Amino acid sequence: MQDFEYYTPTHVVFGKHAVERVGELITGQNGKKVLIHYGGGSAKRSGLLDRVTDALEQSGISYVMLGGVVPNPRLGLVREGIALCKREGVDFILAVGGGSVIDSSKAIAYGIANDGDVWDFYAKKRVPQACAPVGTILTIAAAGSEMSNSSVITNEDGWLKRGLSTELCRCKFAIMDPTLTYTLPAYQTASGAADVMMHTMERYFTQVDTLGLTDSIAESLLKSVMRDVTAALKNPEDYDARAGLMWASSLSHNGLTGCGTDGGDWSCHQLEHELSGKYDVAHGAGLCAVWSSWARTVMPANPARFAKFAIQVMGVQPGADDIETANRGIDAMEAFFQSIGMPVRINQMGIELTEEDMRELAYKCSFMDTRKIGRFVPLDKEAIYKVYQKAKA
Amino acid sequence: MQDFEYYTPTHVVFGKHAVERVGELITGQNGKKVLIHYGGGSAKRSGLLDRVTDALEQSGISYVMLGGVVPNPRLGLVREGIALCKREGVDFILAVGGGSVIDSSKAIAYGIANDGDVWDFYAKKRVPQACAPVGTILTIAAAGSEMSNSSVITNEDGWLKRGLSTELCRCKFAIMDPTLTYTLPAYQTASGAADVMMHTMERYFTQVDTLGLTDSIAESLLKSVMRDVTAALKNPEDYDARAGLMWASSLSHNGLTGCGTDGGDWSCHQLEHELSGKYDVAHGAGLCAVWSSWARTVMPANPARFAKFAIQVMGVQPGADDIETANRGIDAMEAFFQSIGMPVRINQMGIELTEEDMRELAYKCSFMDTRKIGRFVPLDKEAIYKVYQKAKA
Repeated sequence: MQDFEYYTPTHVVFGKHAVERVGELITGQNGKKVLIHYGGGSAKRSGLLDRVTDALEQSGISYVMLGGVVPNPRLGLVREGIALCKREGVDFILAVGGGSVIDSSKAIAYGIANDGDVWDFYAKKRVPQACAPVGTILTIAAAGSEMSNSSVITNEDGWLKRGLSTELCRCKFAIMDPTLTYTLPAYQTASGAADVMMHTMERYFTQVDTLGLTDSIAESLLKSVMRDVTAALKNPEDYDARAGLMWASSLSHNGLTGCGTDGGDWSCHQLEHELSGKYDVAHGAGLCAVWSSWARTVMPANPARFAKFAIQVMGVQPGADDIETANRGIDAMEAFFQSIGMPVRINQMGIELTEEDMRELAYKCSFMDTRKIGRFVPLDKEAIYKVYQKAKA
Repeated sequence: MQDFEYYTPTHVVFGKHAVERVGELITGQNGKKVLIHYGGGSAKRSGLLDRVTDALEQSGISYVMLGGVVPNPRLGLVREGIALCKREGVDFILAVGGGSVIDSSKAIAYGIANDGDVWDFYAKKRVPQACAPVGTILTIAAAGSEMSNSSVITNEDGWLKRGLSTELCRCKFAIMDPTLTYTLPAYQTASGAADVMMHTMERYFTQVDTLGLTDSIAESLLKSVMRDVTAALKNPEDYDARAGLMWASSLSHNGLTGCGTDGGDWSCHQLEHELSGKYDVAHGAGLCAVWSSWARTVMPANPARFAKFAIQVMGVQPGADDIETANRGIDAMEAFFQSIGMPVRINQMGIELTEEDMRELAYKCSFMDTRKIGRFVPLDKEAIYKVYQKAKA
């Protein structure tokens, strides 16, 4: 196993009456002027935004609002938010939404705490030195951004989707009320669950010796999410299932399921980032569309690890050897993704990739042929191209 | 399931080279004058204290030292530490040791940050308003105090052992190097592992509906500790086993295995506190000595929960009904404790309780007949007496 650090300072307040505590939590962070950052109309229509502004007013906290965050959040709105915050003297960012809203909030928070262009940090030209405090009211179980150290932003100029991870941007608090996710459409529920699972699977597939405790927690979490998403799709108001998905979303991306591993593979995330950067697909769905093609590509490098996954997570019968067991596990996961309505090929998202498209995706994913992605098997531009080809249809 | 909060701000630095980072970590907390607090001679003999003082000197941090913490740490030494810190202008407490040293450090930290007698907080006469920063270098996997919000101190005046839990005292950092536990005697290794398990078991045995994800993480952790302690007793220098025990010690008491439950039962801890307060037994061993008697006493109130434990954790074959399955699980855990050299009755610790002793323990444990202990089945003075009687021999 590898040495590791674990740092999860986010104060989680979980349950049916958590939203009303937002004023107290912001006051505890010395927040006096808040940006309420959100996405589309659902936070407004559901009455959530009214509950939030009521709570802030009762706590004597002033605020400005900025909506319009879209999935794969855009740099343009981030820049708009930074300008607004500077103009209004905002000192606390409250993200009301899911991963996209939280990531956009983190980017705004970097922007107001550092000089210069915020994209420099995502383009890895500079390292941020500070970050304004961010808190969140979570409305979808998916990205895990509420407890993670990362954010991902898409630059409309070239549709580059880039991530940034530092300890500075960890949310100060995360308010999690599972009932806020009751109204999510089935596709978003499933896509979110897939994203949750992939955050653990990216960490699980490693070639280093792992810590048994971490492996068993990871396996438990994956089985738990599969059970809960199936239940939530059947009954969208199953509180326990929604709660399980929401809490798994945080635990799956706060580092817990990677303690002692090598940090994870993350190839599928890189492969998907290019897809959703260009075609704007739902992140979790995009991950499902490439996962099995990636898995079949890299599995031969360590069939035993995939065989362990097959038995412990997917519960398959062992085959004649690790390779057969491993393949059964990949098949089973593919079947599970399909059972919750997720694509397992790119064309199932309505995208017909041309030869030229795949070459372009591979070129961008390899940072113009300057890097390899992944650790389980590092993939260069040509290998990336082959995974896209396998995942095409 | 219940609403919950989860707050684990402790920065964990885990691995073979973690000790040398102590200076950097204290500097990060603005610590300038440190109290190095420790127990007996083993930290000195092993060279650990020299490594620590070298690291502090290289970081330009000055320090004073106070050793002598014993298991079931004493109020007398805490008061001595408070006086020393005030005299020397100490602003950071570094606990080098296990749960007793960390708990003693937390008590000193309360003492220097608040006016008045520190025992008032443990006697529940006053609530602390502040706590000086504490960090730790952990040398035994057991109490989980390195990430918990609690500390337990014994007042020599009446041998009262009392706990205090607040968010103020969470360690700022925890340095965890599993190799530091290689030289632990087998009895301490086993007693520590039992303590780790009991922190999750206290949370697991609840009558409220639980969160499936929490249950499965708790079950994974218990199975992992049973596997790892068996391996560590066989080969004390099994790094992965020692690492698993150490990390489980933290996860078992930082709240993770109780998310969504009712906070836990904690009867066994209360029963044991009186035993070790009076007879100074090893905490984990004392827990083992009372657990199965407690379990057999309360199981009939919810056999299904104990049956789930029996199957998921102990791996027993289901019996004709939940009660039979539950009893098989309790028997199996008792056999496991014995397999690692732990007592399962009080007399196996060399203590022959008289009728009068048991009445006195029950009287003190019920706070002079003013409270019940436990949530699974609340136990009054008479019920407490009966558990001691069952556990006697």
